[in-house]
Amino acid sequence: MDKFFEIGYLFDFYGNLLSKKQYDAVELYYIHDLSLGEISEQLDISRQGVYDIIKRAEKKLYSFEEKLGLVKKFNNSIVNMEEILKYINNLKNNQNVYKDKDSMVQIEGIEKLVLDILKTTRR
Amino acid sequence: MDKFFEIGYLFDFYGNLLSKKQYDAVELYYIHDLSLGEISEQLDISRQGVYDIIKRAEKKLYSFEEKLGLVKKFNNSIVNMEEILKYINNLKNNQNVYKDKDSMVQIEGIEKLVLDILKTTRR
Repeated sequence: MDKFFEIGYLFDFYGNLLSKKQYDAVELYYIHDLSLGEISEQLDISRQGVYDIIKRAEKKLYSFEEKLGLVKKFNNSIVNMEEILKYINNLKNNQNVYKDKDSMVQIEGIEKLVLDILKTTRR
Repeated sequence: MDKFFEIGYLFDFYGNLLSKKQYDAVELYYIHDLSLGEISEQLDISRQGVYDIIKRAEKKLYSFEEKLGLVKKFNNSIVNMEEILKYINNLKNNQNVYKDKDSMVQIEGIEKLVLDILKTTRR
């Protein structure tokens, strides 16, 4: 996985366990895509200081995931959700189902729930 | 939610962020259902000490959930999963679907994925 993407995910899950300074630095660097120099100015910390804070924060984020594994757990369920959407599409393309109004109501009910879950778990 | 059940859930998610002593005490008390006296003997800590450790651990678990909200997030998706299973049962009871072999394959595919997710998220 692309590192920016990966840290973004970890930050989404565990960011609130970082210190305020770590949180701000990681957010500016990984989410708002600022350079170390820009963050240094904005937070009034040396460029080296910003770098150290980010490195320490990254380590913490990885260690939370190592201990809790919740990003992995969530990602697995996202993969399953996307699989379910494929089955739903197959069902919708099935003539016998398509012609049956009641079936379509049930299928669209499932689809809505799956999309809801994806919306709340995906960044 | 019943407190034993609630702490059990929080422990499942965040237990690995507790200290070793906190982890052991909470596990013995909430998961293995030992009394404070029994834990006191087993861990060779005073009864009051065990009580304090558990109280501090509970506070930490609640604070993790307050900061991260992952148990709530997971529980919401479990509710949605159970809703999907209801739709699936309706589909299975539908004559037009029931008679269509291909539809049943798709529906059972969805069911399997949903049950898989429930198995990995439920205690």
